[in-house]
Amino acid sequence: MTSTTAGAGAPDARVLRRDTQLCISLSGRPSNIGTKFHNYLYNELGIDFVYKAFSTADLPAAVAGIRALGIRGAGISMPFKEDVIELVDVMHDSAAAIDSVNTIVNEDGILHAYNTDYQAAANLLRERALPRDYSVVVSGSGGMAKAVVAALRDEGYTDTAVIARNEQTGRALAERYGFTWQPELGAARPDLLVNTTPVGMAGGPDADGLPFPPAAIDEAKAAFDVVAMPARTPLISAFDGRPVITGAQVIALQAAEQFVLYTGVRPSDAQITAASEFSRS
Amino acid sequence: MTSTTAGAGAPDARVLRRDTQLCISLSGRPSNIGTKFHNYLYNELGIDFVYKAFSTADLPAAVAGIRALGIRGAGISMPFKEDVIELVDVMHDSAAAIDSVNTIVNEDGILHAYNTDYQAAANLLRERALPRDYSVVVSGSGGMAKAVVAALRDEGYTDTAVIARNEQTGRALAERYGFTWQPELGAARPDLLVNTTPVGMAGGPDADGLPFPPAAIDEAKAAFDVVAMPARTPLISAFDGRPVITGAQVIALQAAEQFVLYTGVRPSDAQITAASEFSRS
Repeated sequence: MTSTTAGAGAPDARVLRRDTQLCISLSGRPSNIGTKFHNYLYNELGIDFVYKAFSTADLPAAVAGIRALGIRGAGISMPFKEDVIELVDVMHDSAAAIDSVNTIVNEDGILHAYNTDYQAAANLLRERALPRDYSVVVSGSGGMAKAVVAALRDEGYTDTAVIARNEQTGRALAERYGFTWQPELGAARPDLLVNTTPVGMAGGPDADGLPFPPAAIDEAKAAFDVVAMPARTPLISAFDGRPVITGAQVIALQAAEQFVLYTGVRPSDAQITAASEFSRS
Repeated sequence: MTSTTAGAGAPDARVLRRDTQLCISLSGRPSNIGTKFHNYLYNELGIDFVYKAFSTADLPAAVAGIRALGIRGAGISMPFKEDVIELVDVMHDSAAAIDSVNTIVNEDGILHAYNTDYQAAANLLRERALPRDYSVVVSGSGGMAKAVVAALRDEGYTDTAVIARNEQTGRALAERYGFTWQPELGAARPDLLVNTTPVGMAGGPDADGLPFPPAAIDEAKAAFDVVAMPARTPLISAFDGRPVITGAQVIALQAAEQFVLYTGVRPSDAQITAASEFSRS
């Protein structure tokens, strides 16, 4: 399993060398998931990289440090995804499409910005291949909502509405992508229900809750939940037997796309699944 | 040997977590020695740290990054030991005594600066306990010369001369610490010969050379060589049977003092020796 060579007398773990590449994450509240996912795959594939999560109280200095130290890549999480835009050098399409960065790749001091959440949402919608004429409702208007709404637009789901209690952010999000905003679902019975709120998140205030009324869940044909912990949220469980896209799939796929950007190596689907399971254990 | 816990299904190596502390080095030409030394001891002692060498073309941004990312510590090597002074927050005595920093410790965003080369030289002189009335000659006037000359002064070796072909740096170094400068050894036959030049360094232009004339070597009572590779330099070999302080001892002890500053844990002498041997293998 371990592909690094340790040399005579070396301990087994963390055999770094001078040329080992470092990737990091920057977030307000670092989790263990990214650190475990990436380090698992570095070991599995014998790639001389190491990954560690950071937080910061000084984002400009942290990004300047990424550039000055030659840190190879950085995952960018809440609350830095928008503030980091003015600190990078090249905004690639995935980040520019939603004015949100979740990945920085350092190419010899030039910082390239991407959004693999958007890429993952778009790829999963494409793979799942639900009918493009499905009516869609997206609940929520936060950072992940933007990635998912942009992906729905770009994958051809034209009949989409955004539900959000906050009219300002909800309307702005919907109108940016040519969709409509409504404060609540009302009597609508959409084909595809998309949740981008924290409802159903383990440890959250509404861990056992459903983000849509039972009647709408009964009549919908498919669901897309961005909540990644647990993998089987109450919403996903309620759709047993119907097509779903899960937050666990989004987080694994977006992390895999980051991995490819950092290392130039694409893991197999089985390796991504194993890394994802390890990262959540 | 390995003290980190890996969890079910984890690979053996590089099991980092969110809270793993990062220490780094900054130098113009990173070697593998520090990376191997520190990571060896982290594993041996089961300390949740990881160490990696970096270079930089932008020292202020790199140091700002250390502060902003919460990187715990940084070893500072040539050519940054003096330029970094204005970038740190607190100059401790060991660094202030010689206007040279080789270690930064980040305490909640406050960067504390030390010089463990000076500390190691002073500690080794104290342990070796050569007579304080020995006449001493130091060859060389570079960065390590400053650490060693200051240590000689502070350990009470008052009869010390600096030999350097460069009168400006040689005289400045000698006079700063109340010693004399001379362009060459001449007829002097000092008790303690100290080499801070690259003479005898493996791979250098004078790898087989001796930094002092054979007659002086024959009559001296002890030697101190800061050249660390090989551990047995030609000068050290010439003193078989007489007391010596070696560059390998200096580099191991200064790295051990860095280790203590970063982690708060003092390794045993046997652990330091094992880490030093591993780092040079």
